[in-house]
Amino acid sequence: MENFRFYSPTEIVFGKKAENEVGKLLKQFNAKMVFIHYGGGSVAKSGLLARVTRILDDEGIDHFELGGAKPNPRSGLVYEGIKLAREKHADFMLAIGGGSAIDSAKAIAAGTKYEGDFWDFYEGKARITDALPVGVILTLPAAGSEASQSAVITQEKGMLKKGITSWFYRPKFAIVDPEITYTAPMFQMTCGVVDMMGHIFERYFTNSRGTELTDAMSEAVLLSIMKAARKMISDPGDYEARATLCWAGTIAHNGLLGVGKKEDWTTHFLEHELSAFYDVAHGAGLSVMYPAYMEYVMDVNPERFRNLAVRVFGITDNGHEDAESLARKGIEALKEFYREMGMPTNFQELGAKEEDIPELLKTLEANRGKEFGNFRTISLEDAKNIYLLACRK
Amino acid sequence: MENFRFYSPTEIVFGKKAENEVGKLLKQFNAKMVFIHYGGGSVAKSGLLARVTRILDDEGIDHFELGGAKPNPRSGLVYEGIKLAREKHADFMLAIGGGSAIDSAKAIAAGTKYEGDFWDFYEGKARITDALPVGVILTLPAAGSEASQSAVITQEKGMLKKGITSWFYRPKFAIVDPEITYTAPMFQMTCGVVDMMGHIFERYFTNSRGTELTDAMSEAVLLSIMKAARKMISDPGDYEARATLCWAGTIAHNGLLGVGKKEDWTTHFLEHELSAFYDVAHGAGLSVMYPAYMEYVMDVNPERFRNLAVRVFGITDNGHEDAESLARKGIEALKEFYREMGMPTNFQELGAKEEDIPELLKTLEANRGKEFGNFRTISLEDAKNIYLLACRK
Repeated sequence: MENFRFYSPTEIVFGKKAENEVGKLLKQFNAKMVFIHYGGGSVAKSGLLARVTRILDDEGIDHFELGGAKPNPRSGLVYEGIKLAREKHADFMLAIGGGSAIDSAKAIAAGTKYEGDFWDFYEGKARITDALPVGVILTLPAAGSEASQSAVITQEKGMLKKGITSWFYRPKFAIVDPEITYTAPMFQMTCGVVDMMGHIFERYFTNSRGTELTDAMSEAVLLSIMKAARKMISDPGDYEARATLCWAGTIAHNGLLGVGKKEDWTTHFLEHELSAFYDVAHGAGLSVMYPAYMEYVMDVNPERFRNLAVRVFGITDNGHEDAESLARKGIEALKEFYREMGMPTNFQELGAKEEDIPELLKTLEANRGKEFGNFRTISLEDAKNIYLLACRK
Repeated sequence: MENFRFYSPTEIVFGKKAENEVGKLLKQFNAKMVFIHYGGGSVAKSGLLARVTRILDDEGIDHFELGGAKPNPRSGLVYEGIKLAREKHADFMLAIGGGSAIDSAKAIAAGTKYEGDFWDFYEGKARITDALPVGVILTLPAAGSEASQSAVITQEKGMLKKGITSWFYRPKFAIVDPEITYTAPMFQMTCGVVDMMGHIFERYFTNSRGTELTDAMSEAVLLSIMKAARKMISDPGDYEARATLCWAGTIAHNGLLGVGKKEDWTTHFLEHELSAFYDVAHGAGLSVMYPAYMEYVMDVNPERFRNLAVRVFGITDNGHEDAESLARKGIEALKEFYREMGMPTNFQELGAKEEDIPELLKTLEANRGKEFGNFRTISLEDAKNIYLLACRK
């Protein structure tokens, strides 16, 4: 087990009608002028925004709003938000939404307290040393940003998609009401399933030793996610399935399942180029890239992939097959699960093109350099090969 | 899944030589006069105390010490600590030890800021509204108090052993260096194994529905604890086994494995009477009580006990046996595991006596009333029957 630091201080308020606690939570953090940041119109249309602003009004907490955070949230809106936060003297950021609204809110929170360009943080030119406190009302279990220390933003100049981590990015609270997700489109929910499983995979693919406890917990969460996702598909009104996905999405990315390990994140890096280039959903890009990545790197530790196949993907080990063969069956079963969820598993289904690979590699190099990855060091040649594997139907 | 609130803000610094971070952590919390509280002489003898005070001296942080916290920590030392903390104007409690030193430190932390008798908190006459911040250097993985919101104290007047919970009882940080446990006696380590498994059992025995995710994680942690404990027994120098136990002990009791569930705690209540009456180790009392409790209540939900048997205790379900029969085999396997660890599994081995049961029931009633428990409501008659089951060899 590697030495580690685990600090996940976000207060999670979880369950039916949890959003009714928002006023009390904001008061707990002494919020007086709340910047409500959200994404598309659904937060307004569903009546959630009105419910929240009414609670704030009742508590005598001032507030103003900025919507428009898109999937793969853009720098333009962050700049606009920073300007607005300063003009209105915001002292608290309340994100209502999924990963996009939350990540955008985190970047605004840090940028507001920084004199330079917030993108400096993302280019490694400056470190976050202060930020507005952030709270979250989650509408989609997926990114795990509601309790994570990371936020991913796409810089519109050059369409560079980058993520950074900071202790200041840990939300103070996260309100999670699984019933709110009933109005989310099923495609967004299944993208979320792929994303949260990915957050576990990136931590599971490690060369660190002595990680059996965290591995076992990760396998338990992956299994539960897959079961709950299938239940949700067959019965979208199943509360327990949605509650399971909501909680799984949070713990998949709050750091718990990465303790004591060197993490990887290669597939996220490869995918970020797809979602930046084609503006496709992050989860859809991931379901294309994971099987390709896993196939390409499994010879680093076939036993680890064999375990995943047997313990999570339901492959039977009859004692006559080698680890590599079982691992391949596991990857095929993962692909089958993605298909069951209606997710793409190759470039064509995603709307990506083999002939664009040189372009993807260019921005990949600009974002990550010539080499990256921990489980296996990935060169740009390796990256090309993985993209090519992902082109196969 | 029940609605829940999960807030576990303790900063965990984990790994080899983690104790070297203590000065930096104390400065982070602006500590100027640190009250170092510990248990027996081993903290001093091992050189740990000297190492810590040297670090504090180097950082220019003032400090003073009070040792003597015993297993089943007593009210007398808490009163003494409160007096001392006030005299010396302590602004931070640093516990070095296992659950006893930590729980004693928590009670001192709360009592110092309260004008009345700290025991008021334990009798429900007052609520904690302020406390000195508490930090921990853990020496024994067991109680999980390093990241929990609870502390158990034995009031010497009447030998009442009671636990309470409070947000103020969450330590600010917990330093966990698995190498420190090398010097702990093996009996204490195996008591710790029983205790941490118990913290999971108390949350596993629930009638709440939709708990599959937390159940699966709990089973994963239980399995990992049992594997690591066996490794530690056969090779006491195995770092990874000790690291696994240390981390498992923390997450077994930081609330993670109880989310979305009504918890139980009956067996802890029954055991507290044993450790208060006979002053035996809490873990030893628990290994006597769990099999008896489980056998007595399993008909509430045989399926749940069957799952535990099959998923954790290695019982094979060949499809021809009913849940109850498998559940019984599971309980027998748990007993066998306790014996393997050298732990007692009945009153005689513990040094308890059947004829004392009426006395145990008297203090049980004083502490818990005529009925308690969630998984199954336990009357005093039930409690008597469970104690009687625990007398069987």
